[in-house]
Amino acid sequence: MKPTAVAIIAEYVPFHNGHLYQLQQAQQRTRAETTVAIMSGNWTQRGEPAIFDKWTRTKMALASGIDLVVELPAVATVQPAHLFAQNAVELVQALDCDYLAFGCEHADWDFNQFTQQQVQLSGAEFADRHLSFPEAFQQALQREEGIELTEPNDTLGFWYAQAIAGQADHLQLVPIKRQVSGHQDHELHATISSGTAIRKALLAHNQNYLTSVPESTAQLMATTQSVTWEQYWPYLKYAINSHSLAELRNIYQMTEGLEHRIKRIAVVARSFTEFLELIKTKRYTYPRLQRLCTDILLNYQAADVANYQPVLRILGMSTAGQRYLHAIKKRLTLPLITTATRSFLENEIQLEVRAGLITEMVTGVVQDRRRSVIRTEAIKE
Amino acid sequence: MKPTAVAIIAEYVPFHNGHLYQLQQAQQRTRAETTVAIMSGNWTQRGEPAIFDKWTRTKMALASGIDLVVELPAVATVQPAHLFAQNAVELVQALDCDYLAFGCEHADWDFNQFTQQQVQLSGAEFADRHLSFPEAFQQALQREEGIELTEPNDTLGFWYAQAIAGQADHLQLVPIKRQVSGHQDHELHATISSGTAIRKALLAHNQNYLTSVPESTAQLMATTQSVTWEQYWPYLKYAINSHSLAELRNIYQMTEGLEHRIKRIAVVARSFTEFLELIKTKRYTYPRLQRLCTDILLNYQAADVANYQPVLRILGMSTAGQRYLHAIKKRLTLPLITTATRSFLENEIQLEVRAGLITEMVTGVVQDRRRSVIRTEAIKE
Repeated sequence: MKPTAVAIIAEYVPFHNGHLYQLQQAQQRTRAETTVAIMSGNWTQRGEPAIFDKWTRTKMALASGIDLVVELPAVATVQPAHLFAQNAVELVQALDCDYLAFGCEHADWDFNQFTQQQVQLSGAEFADRHLSFPEAFQQALQREEGIELTEPNDTLGFWYAQAIAGQADHLQLVPIKRQVSGHQDHELHATISSGTAIRKALLAHNQNYLTSVPESTAQLMATTQSVTWEQYWPYLKYAINSHSLAELRNIYQMTEGLEHRIKRIAVVARSFTEFLELIKTKRYTYPRLQRLCTDILLNYQAADVANYQPVLRILGMSTAGQRYLHAIKKRLTLPLITTATRSFLENEIQLEVRAGLITEMVTGVVQDRRRSVIRTEAIKE
Repeated sequence: MKPTAVAIIAEYVPFHNGHLYQLQQAQQRTRAETTVAIMSGNWTQRGEPAIFDKWTRTKMALASGIDLVVELPAVATVQPAHLFAQNAVELVQALDCDYLAFGCEHADWDFNQFTQQQVQLSGAEFADRHLSFPEAFQQALQREEGIELTEPNDTLGFWYAQAIAGQADHLQLVPIKRQVSGHQDHELHATISSGTAIRKALLAHNQNYLTSVPESTAQLMATTQSVTWEQYWPYLKYAINSHSLAELRNIYQMTEGLEHRIKRIAVVARSFTEFLELIKTKRYTYPRLQRLCTDILLNYQAADVANYQPVLRILGMSTAGQRYLHAIKKRLTLPLITTATRSFLENEIQLEVRAGLITEMVTGVVQDRRRSVIRTEAIKE
C-alpha cells in the first residue's frame, strides 16, 4: 500500500500565509500522509516570469511542509485556465494522488459532482467567433446548468473537475475557502495577503509584507534576486524585431494578424509595460497578451506545444516525499526525472530546458544543468 | 551624356587618411567628374558590426569628397570575398560607373586582363571537400595561371575582375597601391594607419589615431558612440539559446553540425570574445565564424539570402552626386531608394530594415524609419 497523498496545484509566487493555511486545511481535512505540490516552473499561468525561480520557490514550499514538489513546465503552465488545469491534473493523476485540494471562493459548491461526468453543453455561444472556448463554455454553463463562474478560483476548481471527469478516477476534490478575495486584492492585510499585494510591496521595498509570509519565505525573499517582465523586455523586443512575420505567425496563440500590430509597436515601445498597454485592445485580456509575449520570448511554436510530452520532474522532496515516490515508482506512467541528465538536457522535446537558459540570462542562476532534486528532512517528522 | 564616375567599394570603418589617399589617386588617375562609394551598411565583410553606423560613416565619406554613397546591405556584405565582390560590383554596374578604383598590394598587376573573360579552372582542388570554393580556386589559379593571391586586397581586386568578366562591360579597373600593409597591420603610423589600428586605438582611448584620420572623421568619431560585437553578445546568446537545432541549421552558412557546438558553447561563454575563441577550430577562420554569428543575430536564413534583391539605396549625396543620379535615373535597372518609405520598411525582402532595428537596440539611433539621404554641398565645388 502506498501512503495517502493530497495534491495542491500552485504557483507560490511567493509561498505566503494563505498557502500555508490552504496546506494545513488540506492536511486536516484529508489526513493524507503526503503533501504534493504541482508547481509552475519559472513562468506563471498569467504569462509572467515567476518572481523567484523554481528552485527558490521549491525551498519555500518544502520549508512550509510540502513533501514533494513537481514541476509544471512553462509549456503546460502558460495556457488558458482550462488547459492549465488539464495539464496540472494530468500530473496529479500520474502521481496517483488521492485528493486534490484547491482554494476557491465558493467552497460550499459540490465540485465533486462535476467530476462524475463531463458537462455536455450546446448553444449558440460556441458558434460566436468573438468568444473564446472558455467564455462560450461559461455562458452555456450558466444558461443550461445555472452555474455562474465569476471568480477565478471557482473557475479553476471547475476546470480541475472537468479534467478529472469521465476518467473513473478515485481522485477527490477538496475545495477550501480562500481567506483573501483573490488575485485582484492588491492591498496588504494583517497576516494573509494576496501574492499580488506581496509582490507589489516587495518591488516597492515596502517591508510590511513580512507579516504575510512564513519566516522561511521571508529569509529566501531577502536573499534572492526578484525577476519581472522588464528584465526580459530587451530579449522580447529583439525576438520580435529579428523574426519575420511568417515566423511570428507560427508562435503559439498568435492569431488574427496580431503579428503586424506587435511588430509595429515593438519598434517604438520603451518598456514592457508600455508595450503591453499599446498592444492591448478590448478583444484581448492582459493575461492572454502576456502569455503570447512569453511564447514569443521562449520561441514556443504551435507545433512545439502540440508535441508537449509530460514528465514527472521532481524539484524537491522531504523524507516523506521520497518514501511516497518509492512506493509508487513501479506504477508510474510518465518518466520520472530527479536529475537533469545529459539526455534530458539535450532532448529538444523538453522545452523547459530552453526556457531555463533564458531565465539564466536574466538571473545568472543555472536552472537545469547539474541541478538535481532538493532534499530535506521533513519538517513535521 | 552623363558625367563620368569612378566607384570605390568601401567599408570606411572609419574613413581615414588611407581612404583619402585612395580617393585622391582615383580622381587624379581617372579625371572622373563624380566619385561613388558602394559602402557596407552596419555590418562588415568580416562579420563585425561597423564601429560607427552607416549614417555617421556616410557623413565622413561626404566630408572627404565622396559624391554619392550607396549602401551595400548586410545580406550582400557579410559574405565570403568572392560573393561580397560580386554583390558590390552589381551595384557599381547598375550605377553605370566608368571606373572601379581599389586598393591592392600589387598595383602593377594587370587586373583588367581578368575582366576580359572568366578564368576557367579545373583541378582536383574542386573535389577536395576540405577546401572552400575560394581556396580551391586560388590553388588552381596558382597552378594553372601562375597567379599567387596571398594578400587580401589583391584577392578582392581579382574577384572584382571576375565579377565584371564576360559581361562586355566598359567598366575599367584602377588598382591603387595601398600605403599600409593591409588589415593585418595593427600599429598606428604617422599619417596613414590601417582601420584595425585606428579602431584599436579608439577603443583603448588612445588619441594617437588623430593624425591618421581627416579632421571631419575625428570630429564625428569624438561625438558618436562606437559599437563592437560585445554589445550584441546578449542578443546573439539569446538567439542561440531560444532557437531549436533545426532552426539554427536553417541559418545561412551553418554547416556540418556546427549548430551543436555553437549551442553547447553559447551556454557557458561569458563574452563574445570568449565564445568566438571557444568555437574556433582549424577548419574555420575567424571571419567565417564572425559572419556566421552575424547571420544568427540578424536571423538570415539560407532562403532569405537566396531571395536577396539588390536596390540602389542612397545614403548620401553632394550636388555632384545628385546631378549624376539625375543623369542616369531613366536608365536604372534597379529600384532607386532615397527615402525609407512605408512600403520599403514593410517589405520583408528588405532584410536591411530588420538589421537596422537590431543596430538601433544597441545604439538607440534610428537606422531606417524616417531617414532619408544626407545631402551636402560638394566640397570640391
